[in-house]
Amino acid sequence: MSEKRLIAVLKGERFDRPPVWMMRQAGRYLPEYRETRARAGSFWTMCMTPKLAAEVTLQPIRRFGFDAAILFSDILVIPAALGMAVTFEDGVGPRMAPIASGAGLTFDADSLSPVYDALRLVRGSLSQETTLLGFAGAPWTLATYMAAGKGGDEQKAAKLWGYRDPESFEQLLDLLAECVAAHLARQIEAGADAVQIFDSWASGLPEAMFERWVVAPTRKIVAKLRTIHPKALVIGFPRAATLAGYERYAAETGVDAVSLDTAAPIGWAAKTLPCVIQGNLDPIALIAGGRALDAAIDAILAATNGKPHVFNLGHGILPETPIAHVERMLKRVRG
Amino acid sequence: MSEKRLIAVLKGERFDRPPVWMMRQAGRYLPEYRETRARAGSFWTMCMTPKLAAEVTLQPIRRFGFDAAILFSDILVIPAALGMAVTFEDGVGPRMAPIASGAGLTFDADSLSPVYDALRLVRGSLSQETTLLGFAGAPWTLATYMAAGKGGDEQKAAKLWGYRDPESFEQLLDLLAECVAAHLARQIEAGADAVQIFDSWASGLPEAMFERWVVAPTRKIVAKLRTIHPKALVIGFPRAATLAGYERYAAETGVDAVSLDTAAPIGWAAKTLPCVIQGNLDPIALIAGGRALDAAIDAILAATNGKPHVFNLGHGILPETPIAHVERMLKRVRG
Repeated sequence: MSEKRLIAVLKGERFDRPPVWMMRQAGRYLPEYRETRARAGSFWTMCMTPKLAAEVTLQPIRRFGFDAAILFSDILVIPAALGMAVTFEDGVGPRMAPIASGAGLTFDADSLSPVYDALRLVRGSLSQETTLLGFAGAPWTLATYMAAGKGGDEQKAAKLWGYRDPESFEQLLDLLAECVAAHLARQIEAGADAVQIFDSWASGLPEAMFERWVVAPTRKIVAKLRTIHPKALVIGFPRAATLAGYERYAAETGVDAVSLDTAAPIGWAAKTLPCVIQGNLDPIALIAGGRALDAAIDAILAATNGKPHVFNLGHGILPETPIAHVERMLKRVRG
Repeated sequence: MSEKRLIAVLKGERFDRPPVWMMRQAGRYLPEYRETRARAGSFWTMCMTPKLAAEVTLQPIRRFGFDAAILFSDILVIPAALGMAVTFEDGVGPRMAPIASGAGLTFDADSLSPVYDALRLVRGSLSQETTLLGFAGAPWTLATYMAAGKGGDEQKAAKLWGYRDPESFEQLLDLLAECVAAHLARQIEAGADAVQIFDSWASGLPEAMFERWVVAPTRKIVAKLRTIHPKALVIGFPRAATLAGYERYAAETGVDAVSLDTAAPIGWAAKTLPCVIQGNLDPIALIAGGRALDAAIDAILAATNGKPHVFNLGHGILPETPIAHVERMLKRVRG
C-alpha cells in the first residue's frame, strides 16, 4: 500500500489506471517555468543551482500531481563533468568543441554535486506517493554531441568515428558507460527511486551498430550500476529504435522498462517485450487536443491492457502545448 | 536476355550480383554535377530545363555504369504544378507559403512537360541495359512540406492538420494521390521503365496514422497508375517506417519492391516482406570507406542471399562522399 504506484509498476505490478508522467514535464509549456527561467537568466544556471532545479522539478507536480517527478537537468552534464566546455545559447542549442579522441577526458563527479543537491531538495518536498526519477544520457547519444560539437539529429561525426576507428570509439563509449553508471548511482544515493537512460539519437543505426553502440554500452551501465545498487530500477529509452532493436534492447540490457517512441506500436510491445513498457502518446496529438487526443489515449490504454504500463509521451512535451490538454489527458488516463 | 537486370529483379528474378544504383546519384558528390549546377545558376532551373536535367541524370551512368538512371527532378514539382510558388535557396532549402486547406488547388500536369521531355532525352541516350526510373514524392511527405511551408523533418503542421481536421486533410492526401498517379503515368509514357515513390518523412507516425496517411494514399496511387498502365512497376520507400509499418506497406500498397532505410534489418526484410527489396547501405559507411564499408556491403549481400534484391543506399548519397568509395562499393557488389 505504501509503495509508490510507479515503482510498483516497474517491479511488475499492473494497474487498470497506469501511473503517468511526461518527458520534459518541467518545461516551457508552463508559465511558472518560463518565469523561473527568465529569473535564472540561463538554462545552465537552472541546471546547476539546486534551488532552481528543484523548483522547476516540483512545478508540474504541484500543478498536475503526476506520479513521478523527474529531476530538471540535462544529459550534457556528463561531457561537462568530463571537462568539455558546454554552452547553451537560446535558439542555438548546446555547443562544445568537438572531440576526435577520448584521451585526456577525466570524470569529475563532484563537479555535479549541484545535481545531487537538487535531488535531495526535491526528495524533501515530495509526497510519499510521488516517485522521484533521476536520468542520464546514454553513451551513444552523448558521443553524437561530443563528436559533432552540437546537438540536433547529428549522428554523422560519431558514426564516421565509429566506422573509421572502432577501437577508440568503443573506448569512448566504455568511458561514458562508466561515467553514466557513476552519475546514476550518485542520483540514487541522493534520493532517486529509479532512473531513466535517454538514448535520444538511437534511430538510423544499422543492426550491428545498434548492438555495439546502443545495446552493449547500456548493458554495461545497468550491470555496473547494480554492482553498486543491486535493486536499482532502470527505464531505458532507445528512441526510434527499430522494433527488432527494441526487442534486443529489452532482452539484453537488463533494464526493467522500455520507453517507446510515438511510432512504436504499443500493442506489439505489450505482447512482445519481456519488460514493463512506458509511453507513447504523440506529443503532437497533445497539442491538437480534442477527439484526436482522446482517441490516441484510448488506443494506448486498450493496447496495454493486461501489461504493466507507465503512461507517458513518445517524446518530450512541446512548448506550445496548451495546459488544458494536459489536464484533459490526465483526466482521461485516470478515469 | 535482352531484359534489363533491374527490371528482371523487380519482376522477381534473383541475381547473385544484384543490380545497383544510388539514391541521389546525380548529385553534389560529382564534380561534373557541381559544374553543371554552377552553370545553370539554380536548382530549379536544372529541374525545369530538359537538357540540363537529362545531362545530370546521365553523368553518374557515364562515370559508374549504374544499372539504373533516375531522373534528376524534385518531389516538389507536384506542389508547384498545383499552383504553389516553390523557391529553392542555397543553404535554406525549399520554401513555399504554407496552406491550411487544399481548396482551390488544381493540378496542371502540362506545366511539368519539361520533366517528361527530360525523360525522353535520357531515354534516347541510355543503353539498352540501363533501366530508367521516374519518381514522385508520396502524398504524406508532400503534405508535410505544403502544411509547414518548408522542408526538413517538419511533420508538426501536417500532423496537427490531420489530427484536428482529418476530413479535409484526407481530401488533400486524395488530391495528391491523384496528382502523383498522373505524374507517374506521364513519366512512364515518356520512357520510364519503373517508378519510385519517396515517402521521406514516414517516420514517427503512430500506427493508425501510418495506415491512413502513408499506406492508404500509396495504395490509391498504385491502383490508379495500374488502371492507366497495368504493368507499371513501382518501388516504394516509406523511409524509417517501423518494421510493422514496412510489413503493412509491402503487403497492402501493391508496390513491387520496398526500399529500406539504413536501420531496417535487411535480413529480416528478405525473410518477411512479400516483395522485392532494395537497399540499404548506410551513406555514412560510404563516406567512411575502408573495412567498415566492405563489412557493411558484405553483410547486405549475405543477408539478401536467395531473395530478389536491388543494391542501394538506405538514404541519399551525401555531398562529401569520395568518388573512390563509390568505385570501391561497385567493385565489391559486382564481384
